[in-house]
Amino acid sequence: MTIEGMLLVGQQVRYGTAGTLRAVEAATGAAMEPAFGGATAADLEEACALAAAAFDPYRTAAPELRATFLETIAAEILALGDALIVRAMAETGLPRGRLEGERGRTVGQLRLFAAVVRDGGYLDVRIDPAQPERKPLPRPDLRLVNQPLGPVAVFGASNFPLAFSVAGGDTASAFAAGCPVIVKAHSAHPGTSELVGRAVQKAVAACGLPAGTFSLLFDSGRAIGQGLVADPRIKAVGFTGSRGGGTALMKIAAARPEPIPVYAEMSSINPVVLLPAAIAARGAAIGTAFAASLTLGAGQFCTNPGLVLALEGPGLDGFLTAAAGALSACAAQTMLTPGILAAYRAGVAALAENPAVTAVASGLDGGDLSGTARLFATAAADFLADHRLQAEVFGAASLVVRCPDEAALHAVIDALEGQLTGAIHLDDGDTAVAARLMPHLERKVGRVLVNGFGTGVEVAHAMVHGGPYPSTADGRSTSVGTLAIDRFLRPVCYQDVPQALLPPVLRDDNPFRVPRRIDGRLTLPEA
Amino acid sequence: MTIEGMLLVGQQVRYGTAGTLRAVEAATGAAMEPAFGGATAADLEEACALAAAAFDPYRTAAPELRATFLETIAAEILALGDALIVRAMAETGLPRGRLEGERGRTVGQLRLFAAVVRDGGYLDVRIDPAQPERKPLPRPDLRLVNQPLGPVAVFGASNFPLAFSVAGGDTASAFAAGCPVIVKAHSAHPGTSELVGRAVQKAVAACGLPAGTFSLLFDSGRAIGQGLVADPRIKAVGFTGSRGGGTALMKIAAARPEPIPVYAEMSSINPVVLLPAAIAARGAAIGTAFAASLTLGAGQFCTNPGLVLALEGPGLDGFLTAAAGALSACAAQTMLTPGILAAYRAGVAALAENPAVTAVASGLDGGDLSGTARLFATAAADFLADHRLQAEVFGAASLVVRCPDEAALHAVIDALEGQLTGAIHLDDGDTAVAARLMPHLERKVGRVLVNGFGTGVEVAHAMVHGGPYPSTADGRSTSVGTLAIDRFLRPVCYQDVPQALLPPVLRDDNPFRVPRRIDGRLTLPEA
Repeated sequence: MTIEGMLLVGQQVRYGTAGTLRAVEAATGAAMEPAFGGATAADLEEACALAAAAFDPYRTAAPELRATFLETIAAEILALGDALIVRAMAETGLPRGRLEGERGRTVGQLRLFAAVVRDGGYLDVRIDPAQPERKPLPRPDLRLVNQPLGPVAVFGASNFPLAFSVAGGDTASAFAAGCPVIVKAHSAHPGTSELVGRAVQKAVAACGLPAGTFSLLFDSGRAIGQGLVADPRIKAVGFTGSRGGGTALMKIAAARPEPIPVYAEMSSINPVVLLPAAIAARGAAIGTAFAASLTLGAGQFCTNPGLVLALEGPGLDGFLTAAAGALSACAAQTMLTPGILAAYRAGVAALAENPAVTAVASGLDGGDLSGTARLFATAAADFLADHRLQAEVFGAASLVVRCPDEAALHAVIDALEGQLTGAIHLDDGDTAVAARLMPHLERKVGRVLVNGFGTGVEVAHAMVHGGPYPSTADGRSTSVGTLAIDRFLRPVCYQDVPQALLPPVLRDDNPFRVPRRIDGRLTLPEA
Repeated sequence: MTIEGMLLVGQQVRYGTAGTLRAVEAATGAAMEPAFGGATAADLEEACALAAAAFDPYRTAAPELRATFLETIAAEILALGDALIVRAMAETGLPRGRLEGERGRTVGQLRLFAAVVRDGGYLDVRIDPAQPERKPLPRPDLRLVNQPLGPVAVFGASNFPLAFSVAGGDTASAFAAGCPVIVKAHSAHPGTSELVGRAVQKAVAACGLPAGTFSLLFDSGRAIGQGLVADPRIKAVGFTGSRGGGTALMKIAAARPEPIPVYAEMSSINPVVLLPAAIAARGAAIGTAFAASLTLGAGQFCTNPGLVLALEGPGLDGFLTAAAGALSACAAQTMLTPGILAAYRAGVAALAENPAVTAVASGLDGGDLSGTARLFATAAADFLADHRLQAEVFGAASLVVRCPDEAALHAVIDALEGQLTGAIHLDDGDTAVAARLMPHLERKVGRVLVNGFGTGVEVAHAMVHGGPYPSTADGRSTSVGTLAIDRFLRPVCYQDVPQALLPPVLRDDNPFRVPRRIDGRLTLPEA
């Protein structure tokens, strides 16, 4: 499939006339062909009108059709073949292996949500049958089901050009919920976006779904993205990116006559806690593993370990020596965009210039477009005194905070902003310390992990990729895993509604065989 | 128990020194004894510090203790005896029968949430066991459970002095979720609030829970309520009241360094749709029932039928005649507060002065402190042209919109703001019309009901008392029914965490026998 720089407005393919944008080859900085036409206000209006018109037919389509649609998208993405990988490599600088893995994850995610749609548990069907004889008043027949919110705006992420972009987690979970989606493509990988967008567009047609189920817009500035969030027909927003970008969208959404939820996954430094017995026993091994996690994908993961909280003890030097050794041998890596690289360098410079911070290690230097891994250290008291030391440095930089005792460790954690993940490295001898630590950590994060690192987010039923503000805009949700579907749903109750007028899933005969809570008691469909 | 005008700060009882407030006897306008001392900033600070300290011990208390706590509150409220009813009657002007019923509902609600806590389904426990042999990478052990958000601020409602005030639905659901609660008492019923607050305070002590599990503050102005929402230790807000009050709290919450969710239940006019066959067959009966719903509790219900959408047809005159007849005989009723009465009269005057609106009926006049029921009518085109006609008039006033055809009916519904409820009156002959109507209505409301009225909100598993903005601040939630607990929870994932460090509910042996989703498959504990 040729990349033509085209907007996809429902089933139409057209060249936007509001300016142009081009991809930049990450490894060379060269502008790439073709030029993408930016969407006009009229394109946005049409995409929103189509999405609004698609909402009722799409949300009331049979679950099996919605599941098939998700699987068809997966098949169409695979059918794009190597051209997708080649283009994504050029646009992002990410290596082939990573992108092939990410494609597998994207396809797997779409298929997993198809299974969620078929299972129907996410609908939270509840039936409280009528009690006409109840005194003093009869009880009506009450039935509850989660309904989709409406058309959703999705902003693709720069660091996951497949798994969190056009047909990534936000889009898959919104489609699964029954919401049409309008994607604002990330300007860092427009060609990848167009290819995947065409795969989705083909799946819409193949499944006979309404045209407005999906649109893809390019934005040569910021007006289209902002206008999308402000449009009254849009009922929720999915975003992965910077804190500045996320909070800007939150402001727009909150200022609407009808405010809407924004699920922005923004910034996190993912504290890694090192406990004494663990580092005494295997500090060097933990240090080596830490360096590998820190530099994975040039450190461009939301769950990158940007903060290490170490209790002073005999193993700490071993950890630092091993981490420094591994990092010193690390080649510099091409970063996603010149903007991300500039921000990374500025963040590293701010740490280097902070008098309370010492440099521990530096990776190898590279070309003009590459980021060099860096490790710094500071004392708990200094960290507590300077809020700037909590700022996320997006890339392969981390800060070790030396904590003299448990009280200092708890104080540092209590002073942290909300985080996506918190890791603890422990051995059996650390159990009592860890038990006292656990409540501090679990109040701050969406995921607690032991003897591992947050990078590598499993797409699963029990995953939470979300956390208290500002790691995400709404810590009551996850953007990875099957629970992500909940973001795009709201409960609706039907009281004394005749069978013929009920949503089919609420009818007595349970045609889709979903789990139901009847009079409060959970019941499973017969096998 | 004597009413002393006291703040309850944890287990302490003290007189606030920041000004005073008094209850006003609703029927006479006379100030009542005693004067209540307003909380100071220091009182607020102490309540918040206590709540923060109580959070970990309270949330980790065994489910059985939390359930017993809810039941103990219920018992302590009943132990207050008739003094509670007598005081509430004086402060609100609501009749004895209504308040005795509301007490039953309040107690039943607390007991229902005890059952929810014991059931454990709300925890949404999910376990994806480790797959150490998986290729290319092993899968970690992942376990998810809903954890409480933290201390919650609750603002009592004027119109439900028991069921949505100090120990009402917001408080019960927050306690059930594992959150300490600080209540800002409504100034319209401070004596009722103190009595119920002391019942909760006794239950905290009787169950050996941390003192900060509950505090009750009176506010002689607005600073304490606003300061409560702004305090960094508060993690969510429950509110029932006016749109102005709710949006003011939303603004404060959104402007915090860490924004928090506000569950404000604000305003709704609850459209009632009359379909042709139904009104042709029994227009008069529907009209009489409508008048009864409209005037129940002086119309001071969030679900009051403030809007009637009628398809022009042979039965409409019958409906109007019967409704007008019933209303004309209705005695004026004492309203909750002079402020609410003044707002009601202003809203009625605005309708009466609108040239597109005609008066249909008026109830009997009453004393200076009573509201008179009113019914108005307008045409669909006029309603569509004047957004002011959608404004909630809190009290026993309603507006009939005559719709010449289905297209006009759909247009009027599409132009409505979000609503708590939408009712349809239909007969068998209306099924086709109703099927076409249903998608329009269900997009706008939290509850669709047939051949009834929204007043009388059942506390049940399948109830939704919530709806798209501005009926509530967050249409993804309900404030009535067991699903209300979800408002105060967020998912947390535990990855490779040893059994000894896991929250007990996530351990392999499932000590609390909760439903679990294992590898995506829902499993129930054995009976």
